[in-house]
Amino acid sequence: MEIDGGGGINYDVIIIGAGPGGYSAALKAAKNGLKTLLIEKAKLGGVCLNEGCIPTKTLLYSAKIFDNAKNGAKYGVTVENIALDHGKVVKRKDKTVKILAAGLKSSLQNNGVNYLNDEARLVKGEAGNAGVLAGGEVLAAKHIIIASGSSAIMPPIEGAAEMYSAGMVLTNREILDIGEPPKSLAVIGGGVVGLELASYFNSAGSVVTVIEMLPQIGGGLDGELAEILLKDLQKKGISFILNARVVRIAEGSVIYEQAGETRELCCEKALMSVGRSANVSGLGLAEAGVEFSSKGIVTNEFCETNAAGIYAIGDVNGRLMLAHAAYREADVCVNRILGIDDAVDYTNIPAVIYTNPETAAVGETEESAKEKGCDYEAVKVSMRYSGRYLAENEGGDGICKIILDRNSREIIGVHMIANYSSEIIYGAGILIRNKTKVGDIEKIVFPHPSVGEIIREALI
Amino acid sequence: MEIDGGGGINYDVIIIGAGPGGYSAALKAAKNGLKTLLIEKAKLGGVCLNEGCIPTKTLLYSAKIFDNAKNGAKYGVTVENIALDHGKVVKRKDKTVKILAAGLKSSLQNNGVNYLNDEARLVKGEAGNAGVLAGGEVLAAKHIIIASGSSAIMPPIEGAAEMYSAGMVLTNREILDIGEPPKSLAVIGGGVVGLELASYFNSAGSVVTVIEMLPQIGGGLDGELAEILLKDLQKKGISFILNARVVRIAEGSVIYEQAGETRELCCEKALMSVGRSANVSGLGLAEAGVEFSSKGIVTNEFCETNAAGIYAIGDVNGRLMLAHAAYREADVCVNRILGIDDAVDYTNIPAVIYTNPETAAVGETEESAKEKGCDYEAVKVSMRYSGRYLAENEGGDGICKIILDRNSREIIGVHMIANYSSEIIYGAGILIRNKTKVGDIEKIVFPHPSVGEIIREALI
Repeated sequence: MEIDGGGGINYDVIIIGAGPGGYSAALKAAKNGLKTLLIEKAKLGGVCLNEGCIPTKTLLYSAKIFDNAKNGAKYGVTVENIALDHGKVVKRKDKTVKILAAGLKSSLQNNGVNYLNDEARLVKGEAGNAGVLAGGEVLAAKHIIIASGSSAIMPPIEGAAEMYSAGMVLTNREILDIGEPPKSLAVIGGGVVGLELASYFNSAGSVVTVIEMLPQIGGGLDGELAEILLKDLQKKGISFILNARVVRIAEGSVIYEQAGETRELCCEKALMSVGRSANVSGLGLAEAGVEFSSKGIVTNEFCETNAAGIYAIGDVNGRLMLAHAAYREADVCVNRILGIDDAVDYTNIPAVIYTNPETAAVGETEESAKEKGCDYEAVKVSMRYSGRYLAENEGGDGICKIILDRNSREIIGVHMIANYSSEIIYGAGILIRNKTKVGDIEKIVFPHPSVGEIIREALI
Repeated sequence: MEIDGGGGINYDVIIIGAGPGGYSAALKAAKNGLKTLLIEKAKLGGVCLNEGCIPTKTLLYSAKIFDNAKNGAKYGVTVENIALDHGKVVKRKDKTVKILAAGLKSSLQNNGVNYLNDEARLVKGEAGNAGVLAGGEVLAAKHIIIASGSSAIMPPIEGAAEMYSAGMVLTNREILDIGEPPKSLAVIGGGVVGLELASYFNSAGSVVTVIEMLPQIGGGLDGELAEILLKDLQKKGISFILNARVVRIAEGSVIYEQAGETRELCCEKALMSVGRSANVSGLGLAEAGVEFSSKGIVTNEFCETNAAGIYAIGDVNGRLMLAHAAYREADVCVNRILGIDDAVDYTNIPAVIYTNPETAAVGETEESAKEKGCDYEAVKVSMRYSGRYLAENEGGDGICKIILDRNSREIIGVHMIANYSSEIIYGAGILIRNKTKVGDIEKIVFPHPSVGEIIREALI
């Protein structure tokens, strides 16, 4: 099925949503000579740039400087009257976002991407094919890429919606622009977003309590790493309530059930960070015959939907909900459009939690390997075998855990809890991608001293 | 030629020198069932552990915390009365070294490595083959690995030796144990060692001036990176005198020639960091017929010397003088002994300068590519294209420069100036090792946001 919006083919590619998936697809398409239209109803850069990855990292870096200075005596550095000025941190965050957004805008312009700031929805064209209704007209394209992203879930908890309207419950969006840190903050959901923001507001002076429904924090994080992270964050003063289900939210309090009892946590604000849901509504998916569920638009490893010529990349396909997964999906999707054979390999996409310490992982966890029935071996080593880690992490208890296929002796998973692991993990992804065997690790030269050397140390 | 020390074969392998090359060769040999003797005349761990890599990184991390706190206002963090207690920093350095040395000692013991703390020299055995004289007797082995390291060069500058004896001139060894930072420090030689120690003492409060004979700092560092690093370090308050040759050292002053004029730099102490020379004397190399020059023992890519059964790894072969190169050479050398085919690939061994900002490089520089007559292309991108870099480096001016083979489109060099680059560079080494082509970079998934993403950004 060729797409025909009725008014003829106006574009080679129309992309709905200008987050990491959308803008990188647009740039790649335009660079390759495709007539490209990028449509975004909110802000260029999407959640990632405006209210996700980048803003939180700006905040977390200020928190890291604060924490390091506060604990500097361990390293021979003493300070007095240390203070974190939340207002200044937010201003700096805004400036950082503005610089990146401006850079992105000019990059799109320079590469000839057409940009439309409007809502967009699929419609059935005259020829029965899908078109895009945006800017008051029906636009047609040979290919449509849906990259509409995701939104913070507001679960049907009693009082949640009301307290959200009242400004007591916040999502990642609102909390990033809050004037000053709340005296006390309940973080509902101890996944990546919850932990990163809990970390920042703890450093910024809030009394932070994380309420998590599961027995462990960190979402899909390896269980042992999650345990270490929990202890590290507890040491910093964050409280955790695990195995607890929030049942009601009222002004100034979150009511939860734990071990059969109902309890109340008093808090000035509550962050709702129980997950994100794919933005599938308002897109005309049903009308265009695109298969989707509440989990997202159904795609294959080529980012194709069931409807020919329509692709879905990024959070909206509900696969990984990571900006860099969206980048990769954008590449694959545009390559397919260009007739270049490519597919997303979901086995080596890293995931990072930018707390202090950071965690980073790629490939199978012990849990996922077990579930798949892999014959695996887990090699675990203390980060303290790394000279640099020891030099820079007084009292640190990080580990590196590597999952091997017991038969092929290939590396199939790497998990680290230590600062710098966010920057080390891509290389581990390359090792997995290349089906590197344990015996070949000595051919990889890590600079000495580096934290990354721990990968070699674990395997030789 | 089999080696026979006269008293029969006592060991499978004797290793002279217990630095990174020596101890890792010993561990690998013993783990593989070889009867192994490791001989060290000074301290277990060698220069790297005791007076090089590890101690300096401990100091530099304290300096980083100090610098970050001092400049925290940019990030919304303010402190008062900040102080760096050099005595505490040195104590912590000593503790870190002690922990690592103890770990190394127990690792050697647990793996059954025999250890002898004594001088060692090659001697001619009764059968005409080489043996090792150590501990008062002649020991024999099938294989001898020389890993005797290097020493700081004390050049024949007038007054240098005298002022060294008088304690005014120091090498990396003495300066690490100095009681308090000198009021003023002249650093003679702006290579890696000089720059790292200049950085620390600048943070610790010394007035630091680096005198460099060449027009650029950083040794073999890419010229553009060296220029940026120079400016960054100048901004921090370090002075540089380039194209200058030191001609005399006297109590309290270093006399140098620059542009035909003779000038004097007053300083309390002077660090001699003009390079390192291979420890080739006192080893009986001539007697054993091992070919060497003042640059080191001559070896091939298998770490073999001209004398059968005698290998040389690490600084003493004068090739790279990097701890991790020694690790790799140790692997190759023991693999050869075990009959496993292996060779050192010197094209993808990273080099790092742990200043703030760090620099890291692997593979060809523009300069080396030009010299070899490569048809190359240099791709350069500002680090400010990385969202994380922008979030964490207010006013940062780092770059990433990638050297491509214009014909094969393979990545042949990666150069970065930015913090975290020390941890990112090993992955770039894998890309070079794998002969990764530009077009394949999009298949490598870097977490977003990360500084490492700049590699992708530069090439897509």
